[in-house]
Amino acid sequence: MRSQRFSKSCRASVLVATALGVFGTAGNLMAQALKDVQAADSPLVLKAQGSFFVGGEKVEQTQGELGDLGPGGHISVNQMYVRYMVPQGGDGNPPVVMVHGATLTGKSWETTPDGRMGWDEYFVRRGHPVYVPDQVGRGRSGFNQAVFNNTRAGSAPAASLPRWLRFSDEGVWPNFRIGPKAGQPYPDTQFPVTALDELSKQGVPDVSFGGIPTPNPTLKALADLAGQLNGAVLMGHSQSGSFPLAAALLNPAAMKGLVLVEPGTCPANYTDEQIATLAKVPILVVFGDYRDTPTGIPALPTWQGRYEACQAMIGRIKNAGGQAEMLSPTEIGSRGNSHMIMQDKNHLQVADLILKWIGERVSKPGTQKK
Amino acid sequence: MRSQRFSKSCRASVLVATALGVFGTAGNLMAQALKDVQAADSPLVLKAQGSFFVGGEKVEQTQGELGDLGPGGHISVNQMYVRYMVPQGGDGNPPVVMVHGATLTGKSWETTPDGRMGWDEYFVRRGHPVYVPDQVGRGRSGFNQAVFNNTRAGSAPAASLPRWLRFSDEGVWPNFRIGPKAGQPYPDTQFPVTALDELSKQGVPDVSFGGIPTPNPTLKALADLAGQLNGAVLMGHSQSGSFPLAAALLNPAAMKGLVLVEPGTCPANYTDEQIATLAKVPILVVFGDYRDTPTGIPALPTWQGRYEACQAMIGRIKNAGGQAEMLSPTEIGSRGNSHMIMQDKNHLQVADLILKWIGERVSKPGTQKK
Repeated sequence: MRSQRFSKSCRASVLVATALGVFGTAGNLMAQALKDVQAADSPLVLKAQGSFFVGGEKVEQTQGELGDLGPGGHISVNQMYVRYMVPQGGDGNPPVVMVHGATLTGKSWETTPDGRMGWDEYFVRRGHPVYVPDQVGRGRSGFNQAVFNNTRAGSAPAASLPRWLRFSDEGVWPNFRIGPKAGQPYPDTQFPVTALDELSKQGVPDVSFGGIPTPNPTLKALADLAGQLNGAVLMGHSQSGSFPLAAALLNPAAMKGLVLVEPGTCPANYTDEQIATLAKVPILVVFGDYRDTPTGIPALPTWQGRYEACQAMIGRIKNAGGQAEMLSPTEIGSRGNSHMIMQDKNHLQVADLILKWIGERVSKPGTQKK
Repeated sequence: MRSQRFSKSCRASVLVATALGVFGTAGNLMAQALKDVQAADSPLVLKAQGSFFVGGEKVEQTQGELGDLGPGGHISVNQMYVRYMVPQGGDGNPPVVMVHGATLTGKSWETTPDGRMGWDEYFVRRGHPVYVPDQVGRGRSGFNQAVFNNTRAGSAPAASLPRWLRFSDEGVWPNFRIGPKAGQPYPDTQFPVTALDELSKQGVPDVSFGGIPTPNPTLKALADLAGQLNGAVLMGHSQSGSFPLAAALLNPAAMKGLVLVEPGTCPANYTDEQIATLAKVPILVVFGDYRDTPTGIPALPTWQGRYEACQAMIGRIKNAGGQAEMLSPTEIGSRGNSHMIMQDKNHLQVADLILKWIGERVSKPGTQKK
């Protein structure tokens, strides 16, 4: 069934992609994103906004490790940058922490590639304080540069360098399920395909796979942030889709709810004790469409495989008396949602379903609902 | 005179620093920054907020250059991330673009290290749309990772790697003029010394010195951004202190005014033609105190040397009929301002002086004042 739809859509979409000229070649990108940015109909009234850091540690480094300009000494590493907005009059609604995926930053949750309001602002407008971190190792959280300078100076072997990961624009099409191949959008894709060049600009090199400590400092930072907020809903996406689970195991008392958006993994190896802990927290898993599209990355299973792993985890949590649910495309009432569901054309409808779930399942601070 | 004050303050401040325990050693930083964040007395009412990119280009890279996970193909590099807030009811006031300095990100302008309102929000509350970029190569703008992955794979020599620069906490004291030496704050320093560990967390590795194209793509991106805004005040700090000048030479018609906060350089080699161009734009240069403190970095002159270079440039611009001014500590009416003047304890008083200058010297969109 699905393969039939694929082949039909492929034929139709070659023309679409050609007409759109979606793909830039080497050279300047001509898109002028500012002109596409849309203002909301009504003002955004904030009680507060700003930014701060969670976690971090001091390490001592040599002048060479610091880039050989100023004197050696201590620097901070592994801190997590967080930007936040608190709505006026939203008192009592749980804060929502939105964590981005691989090769991306907190930008994922801000203005969409085609200039529509991001989930960060929408959740604020719906009364929730919103906290958007950059994962440790990326964006405004920075990374530990010592090994790179040591290699440059010849005092560390090149093989000791961690890899920097980015996804090519071409690879994003099947992996993010915008279409089965580059330049071939699904006819009903919800992703704003004409803005793919703007999604491309959101990419940053990702050193998570070897260049940050184990366990990932972001996990404890998220657990600590939820504690500092006196309870929060943690929302992860893709690579960070399982981070709320890990943070909940570190600090279960601070978790008001967990939202796993297109999680890269739902671990199958949790102990019964861990499942019992997760059973105390409301959990929602959200997946888009076209999950059986091959990712185009041999090391990565299909998203359908991950969906099924999450179904299995949900089953274990429910058997342990917990509240875990799957929000499937059918429930959303729409086909064609991509991996970047928070940027899809129907992103506010999806957000409404998550907000409804929070309203029904998540207790307000100082209360117990469940 | 100055050296006398130095020696007195040094003696006094050793005790202060010891009592404060300002310096962490290796290990977890205990500061919990969120608890220090202060909310404003009145709500912030925004017509719009969000983020977008300016500039960027597509390059084609191999699977190895992309970190050897997904397929090779095109990625975007050299784009500039910009976050913005537009106040409700501020129509007619020129937008202000705030650019950060070396080893830092746009975070410089947000909530101060000790939790006070940043200049970004303050300028919005005073009616100006504010745009805060991350320089190309840093933060959410990302960088080109190919050479690092090639070196790791052995296909590029280690010597081809660009350096990553960071400043040690100890080096920041004299270079940012918080005190003559680490742990010895000037008794009248305006920097919130107890929050130095939070300033430390703002540091990220900086690949500007060899790892980005020449000329720095941020310069054209700033010139383009000012054009897209139909005119803007460009504000640079430290390393980017001269960026507004460079952007003005690229796109003079889009410059409503230039504010150079503690600029790392005021170029002495501008041609008379370039000076004539700069003479068409109101320019304000802002410097803090203790400028004759040795920077502790042999390659870098004192800030007094740079102050004098800026005075010379101001002189040339005035001789060419332009409006260029120096805002000196005496005019601010207060001693002890540091290099991080936008985070100093009297940062809003300094902001008020800049806002006053904008009000007097900078024309509103669609008008000509001068």
